[in-house]
Amino acid sequence: MFEYPWTSLMKLLDEIADIGRDPVSGGYVRYAWTEPELALRDWFRDQATQRGLALEDDGNGNIFAWWGSGPDAVLTGSHLDSVPHGGAYDGPLGVVSALLAIDELRQRGVKPAKPIGIAVFAEEEGSRFGLACLGSRLLTGAVAPDQVDLQGVFEPVGRRQDILDRIGCFVELHIEQGRALQRPVGVASAIWPHGRWRLDFAGEPNHAGTTQMGDRRDPMLTFAFTVLAANKEARLRHAHATIGRVQVAPNATNAIPSSVRAWLDARAPSPEIVDELVEALRAKASERASRDGTTVTMTAESITPAIEFHIGLRDRLARLLDAPILPTGAGHDAGVLSAYVPTAMLFVRNPTGVSHSPLEYAADEDCEAGVTALADVLQDLTC
Amino acid sequence: MFEYPWTSLMKLLDEIADIGRDPVSGGYVRYAWTEPELALRDWFRDQATQRGLALEDDGNGNIFAWWGSGPDAVLTGSHLDSVPHGGAYDGPLGVVSALLAIDELRQRGVKPAKPIGIAVFAEEEGSRFGLACLGSRLLTGAVAPDQVDLQGVFEPVGRRQDILDRIGCFVELHIEQGRALQRPVGVASAIWPHGRWRLDFAGEPNHAGTTQMGDRRDPMLTFAFTVLAANKEARLRHAHATIGRVQVAPNATNAIPSSVRAWLDARAPSPEIVDELVEALRAKASERASRDGTTVTMTAESITPAIEFHIGLRDRLARLLDAPILPTGAGHDAGVLSAYVPTAMLFVRNPTGVSHSPLEYAADEDCEAGVTALADVLQDLTC
Repeated sequence: MFEYPWTSLMKLLDEIADIGRDPVSGGYVRYAWTEPELALRDWFRDQATQRGLALEDDGNGNIFAWWGSGPDAVLTGSHLDSVPHGGAYDGPLGVVSALLAIDELRQRGVKPAKPIGIAVFAEEEGSRFGLACLGSRLLTGAVAPDQVDLQGVFEPVGRRQDILDRIGCFVELHIEQGRALQRPVGVASAIWPHGRWRLDFAGEPNHAGTTQMGDRRDPMLTFAFTVLAANKEARLRHAHATIGRVQVAPNATNAIPSSVRAWLDARAPSPEIVDELVEALRAKASERASRDGTTVTMTAESITPAIEFHIGLRDRLARLLDAPILPTGAGHDAGVLSAYVPTAMLFVRNPTGVSHSPLEYAADEDCEAGVTALADVLQDLTC
Repeated sequence: MFEYPWTSLMKLLDEIADIGRDPVSGGYVRYAWTEPELALRDWFRDQATQRGLALEDDGNGNIFAWWGSGPDAVLTGSHLDSVPHGGAYDGPLGVVSALLAIDELRQRGVKPAKPIGIAVFAEEEGSRFGLACLGSRLLTGAVAPDQVDLQGVFEPVGRRQDILDRIGCFVELHIEQGRALQRPVGVASAIWPHGRWRLDFAGEPNHAGTTQMGDRRDPMLTFAFTVLAANKEARLRHAHATIGRVQVAPNATNAIPSSVRAWLDARAPSPEIVDELVEALRAKASERASRDGTTVTMTAESITPAIEFHIGLRDRLARLLDAPILPTGAGHDAGVLSAYVPTAMLFVRNPTGVSHSPLEYAADEDCEAGVTALADVLQDLTC
């Protein structure tokens, strides 16, 4: 019988708990191809080797560890990189759970009829080079190597049709990132459509001390109004709108700004609602700008359509696990893969809903329920 | 009779119009002890020498050009440095007008009974080292050399009591920085009290895509509300409030911020009104923070009391010129000098009120009226 190298999921997560952790924030700073992320790759390769899995690099920064070989493989896994000062679970939980699910299948004495693979995808968060799901996009050809600038850090080979041809389906386990899941494990239905818009507010630079309030054309006022309006318009539509990034010029205490640039992140259950939200905000911001003597323009920088996961696979997993089905507002490698292979996602409950933060948290028993669920799914799909 | 080196004020301003001008913004970038500002000093020394004035460096970065010597001097002048992308008049107009006022006195055949000096004060805007009126503060001892960090660029000698002892009074001519002056020339009554407060908004970092609106503790919302409240509270009190500087963490498009830091610049006719404004804003911001699930703290970084210029001198100039008396919201070297010698200011009309901007503007005929007024004042005070 297989010897467990670890006695519990928590022990495996603890093993990497100090890698890339910021001592001040308590959060993780694990950007792709930096020292902490390379240490995590070494740790993963060592774990895979201990389990007798065959390692394969795809030339795009992604690592695969295979139990068995051949076509029609069932792939699982997630990513090890983080947002700036992110939490312990986003990404690593999917990788650790995959390792432990294989342990559990072996303990159960399962002999899978199909290969099982664990993927570690590179730069899922886009924290280093600005493009989320970089590794899975390169693997699938969703982006070509000449469309990305990795600043000489890495030279990707691009689409690997031979690997895609061997994947029968992909199931990613991930911590849920809101508070929508009331039970330990759920199954994803879809990823909300979302987009980013750049907002450029322009006014008239002037002296903060001497310019009468009525003579001002202050773009900071139009910006501030737009922040509050975005929040209100999102609440009205049960959508999500965030303005979290701002650049002010000249950004001096005693100067009325000449310009404020900000970015809107908007997501909703349907693209129609995203459009409605953005158009309502555009109208309100423009009306306010005319009162402030300023101007505002909104420019779409990226619009990602809704992604519906494979319905047959989704329903099979939900029935197998007796688990609820729910959508998510976040992008994932599973969202990229879903255009190429049947894909599903399992979510583990997030009791606080906190994500992309050092405060991200999942209960130990829910994480363990996630491992069992993933083992059940892998067994069901390979036997 | 004296030979004019220049035929008009505009020609003299034109001579320096290309020094330190940013070709994109059209504004001036003339920071103390940088190449453009050093070129302006050379230009001033050359102008003074052409007029037979005696140059004196005070060891604090300030330059004096003297017509005559001895005690009870009447000092005029201003500064040549700029804010980032500032206008052509703020500072240089006072220096150019001083040179031309001496030309005009000589043309009138005036033989002053007291010395007349032109001062060029260093780093008035504080754009390079962060402390406004650096040169005049060092000259007077308002700050000591060991209280400032000039990063090795310059080693000031500090208070020059011997120079202060020779100054009977100081009159600075400056472009007005609002739209309060309806005639070509006015006389300053006072500089409004003003202060800077740091505002720290703290919330909970989270995922912009997945966090439901009702679960957020978004400090950007509290910040935006506070920007609009500062504007409203200032208007109610005929005061000035500006939030022109902002820092967001982590400042990412897909992240609800963990914190927003901003700075409030507040000025009013009296310190009581400044206090009222700040306290009203503190109450409103705190109330909003409690609704947003965030926190806000306001910390005073600097508070400058009101400066009342010398009343006798002010009234003498206003009578002589039949000019209106008005306050200003801006700091000046004259504000620093006024604590040590009788000090007054002349303002030249600013028809648009624009200041600290490439769009700053004064009409040629108003600038010429300013030279005549300054010549009248120097004649009256020295004869």
